Amino acid sequence: MSDATDRNVCPTKGLNDELLLSPKTSLLLYNSYMNAEIITIGTELILGQIVDTNFAFIARRLAEAGVSVYYKTSVGDNEKRMAETIKLALSRSDVVIITGGLGPTVDDVTRPVLVKLLNLKLVLNEHVLKYMQTYFDQRNIKMPQNNVSQALVPNGATIIENKNGTAPGLIIPVAKKYIIVIPGVPREMKPMLTESVIPFLKANFKTEGIIKSRVLKVYGLGESRVDELIEDLFRDSQNPTIALLASHLETKVRMTVKAKNDIEAEQLLNLMEVKIRERLHENIFAVDDDTMEKSVAMLMTLKKLTLATAESCTGGLLSSRITDVAGASAFFIRGVIAYSNESKMESLKVRKLSLELYGAVSKQVAEEMAEGVRITSGTDIGISVTGIAGPGGGTLEKPVGLVYIALSTDKEVISKEFRLGGNRIWNKERTAQNALDMLRRHLLAR
Amino acid sequence: MSDATDRNVCPTKGLNDELLLSPKTSLLLYNSYMNAEIITIGTELILGQIVDTNFAFIARRLAEAGVSVYYKTSVGDNEKRMAETIKLALSRSDVVIITGGLGPTVDDVTRPVLVKLLNLKLVLNEHVLKYMQTYFDQRNIKMPQNNVSQALVPNGATIIENKNGTAPGLIIPVAKKYIIVIPGVPREMKPMLTESVIPFLKANFKTEGIIKSRVLKVYGLGESRVDELIEDLFRDSQNPTIALLASHLETKVRMTVKAKNDIEAEQLLNLMEVKIRERLHENIFAVDDDTMEKSVAMLMTLKKLTLATAESCTGGLLSSRITDVAGASAFFIRGVIAYSNESKMESLKVRKLSLELYGAVSKQVAEEMAEGVRITSGTDIGISVTGIAGPGGGTLEKPVGLVYIALSTDKEVISKEFRLGGNRIWNKERTAQNALDMLRRHLLAR
Repeated sequence: MSDATDRNVCPTKGLNDELLLSPKTSLLLYNSYMNAEIITIGTELILGQIVDTNFAFIARRLAEAGVSVYYKTSVGDNEKRMAETIKLALSRSDVVIITGGLGPTVDDVTRPVLVKLLNLKLVLNEHVLKYMQTYFDQRNIKMPQNNVSQALVPNGATIIENKNGTAPGLIIPVAKKYIIVIPGVPREMKPMLTESVIPFLKANFKTEGIIKSRVLKVYGLGESRVDELIEDLFRDSQNPTIALLASHLETKVRMTVKAKNDIEAEQLLNLMEVKIRERLHENIFAVDDDTMEKSVAMLMTLKKLTLATAESCTGGLLSSRITDVAGASAFFIRGVIAYSNESKMESLKVRKLSLELYGAVSKQVAEEMAEGVRITSGTDIGISVTGIAGPGGGTLEKPVGLVYIALSTDKEVISKEFRLGGNRIWNKERTAQNALDMLRRHLLAR
Repeated sequence: MSDATDRNVCPTKGLNDELLLSPKTSLLLYNSYMNAEIITIGTELILGQIVDTNFAFIARRLAEAGVSVYYKTSVGDNEKRMAETIKLALSRSDVVIITGGLGPTVDDVTRPVLVKLLNLKLVLNEHVLKYMQTYFDQRNIKMPQNNVSQALVPNGATIIENKNGTAPGLIIPVAKKYIIVIPGVPREMKPMLTESVIPFLKANFKTEGIIKSRVLKVYGLGESRVDELIEDLFRDSQNPTIALLASHLETKVRMTVKAKNDIEAEQLLNLMEVKIRERLHENIFAVDDDTMEKSVAMLMTLKKLTLATAESCTGGLLSSRITDVAGASAFFIRGVIAYSNESKMESLKVRKLSLELYGAVSKQVAEEMAEGVRITSGTDIGISVTGIAGPGGGTLEKPVGLVYIALSTDKEVISKEFRLGGNRIWNKERTAQNALDMLRRHLLAR
């Protein structure tokens, strides 16, 4: 911290107000509502070779911080079109956030375009060069010569250090506006955005209130039934607004609220969540990023029970989802994937007579599989699936998508028939989801 | 087909030139190079609530058809900003493709905005109304009154029928340019784009040549080693250009070629593929959308061998990936997920002594698991994985990410140690990938 250049550094871990607001950094504090606009740069985006996941991440974090985003543009690594896009964005938005084009190759033209457009110069930043050198040293790699270009920084720009890569982020003041440039690599971009850019925007702009959403995930009710049950909330509630999004694995009820701050947002979301739960009850299996398997794991652990699985058509997917949850080994003892009739008989003690009389895809065999895996594994619960995933193997009587799921305890065996009729992957996924949901409901009632 | 309105219909299945080029549809045929621009509409996009996957799909299909895309903009359901965005796009592009905002609710303003901007009128289209009615009839649902709004079509627009939903697509001529509007729901958008929009553009514009890419998927070599091996091709080849994309499950070598037509593109890609294969050999496990498990399944079927799996830390993921491939039941006989020591002993005949002496995560136990599952299942090959997926369970001696994989045949048992050290899901995924790759290489050499 010996010279002005070094002071121009915005650490990614938390925001150092002193540094950011120092006169030398030429960042001006002023209070006004603001809107931001996002530009993602890369020819691979514009050719459709990769899906732009950065944008949703950035937009969501900005909305939650109370920053309005009205436009998002993607453009290739082309100097003219990039300059035009940035110029337009500056004309209508207070903050322009640019991702991508910061790499060390000649294709990466974001910095050259910016200095030309804003009439700035690229200056070698010793601090950046030093941390880049450390980055390569730690990995026992000699720093390639062309990486040095990444230490060239527009004069007047504040640096955001890159913990997970080499290119620094840049905050460039332009009159009363800002251009903020962050790398396109998600692993590098995300911490910079949440740890530096958002705090910087909050410190420098008054926000107009925040937008926050929460998702309740529903299973076991069709989309139209969910719609019916919450139709009045759906229609009458202005804040939060409610939206339904259905897929083959869940129906999401998304509440989106505008509020003065996070506390008010949470209160409004909680209030509406209570109302929706009064209508949908235990059909809600998880909130936001939580999953069906996580709910199952929590209930299994809470009730101190053990589990074994017997799978046919899901081929291991059911067990794999259960073991995705950290700590699953505390309750998950054994899984058997019995694709052939022989393995159903040997590993699961399914009777030959049942296979002959009813076939491998039948209620009877499903129940024997669940019983068999529970008893041979010595667990409290055994759950089984058998079905025809497709595309082959279906008949008129037993079509692709016909599935039986059974659950066995020392007190009872319950089973259920499903007729799914999608493609192979879809059928595997829905069957695993149905099995987990059956288990979840059993645990809730137990 | 009795009146002018009905003739204004472009069926999604194949393009009916007569209809599209009829004078009544006011579509003009002219020859010139062209560029397209894409606008995706929806407040849920701009709030970051969903990831825009439509754009990459559309951009890729256009590039492959020889249509240059230079800009992509996303904007919320806001009339003013939507109008401004469309106006700007029309000023710089020949074709503007808009997705989203075609639903039946008041939020869906794409059609109203367009008629206002272009000085058109919304006219009830009887043909659309009729197929929408059929759509609801087939699903035994009464058509909601507000869906009728979707049959209101700008005068002069050509209709693209929607096989998978209600809102029709629209082709609207504007001077010598076109605005093409398609729904935002991917299931509805995709067939419209490939079956109607692309053929329409090809028929109405001369294309400047096409851009096509092919991905070779590599495993078993680090990214920097791949880089070294093809460095000169990488550096010297202008067409196709070559890019590397590394993730924890593969390194992709993407070749992107510009060519006059599809045949020339394929030739250039084939030529380069041969050169790259000469460097990377069997480390290339699949091409484009093909997967490691598909390669394994093809080899297993070709060699007429049978397989059983024994999994610990992957918890079923290995088997699930194998059974994702249609026809896996022909070679995949049985899988065992042995999470506990007891189940390793009972189901897989692992010796108690080995568990006590070496521990469950050891070369010895991995090999006994592979042997055990092969012999008890009566298959040609047995493959096993045991490891510490994390986050718990690691020790100084056996840290999270330590994994052993073994493969047993009637002739030999081979095994390999891996030190991965990622998070739980990452470790599961890499372990399954390593196991599949070991099996693939064994089958190639066999």
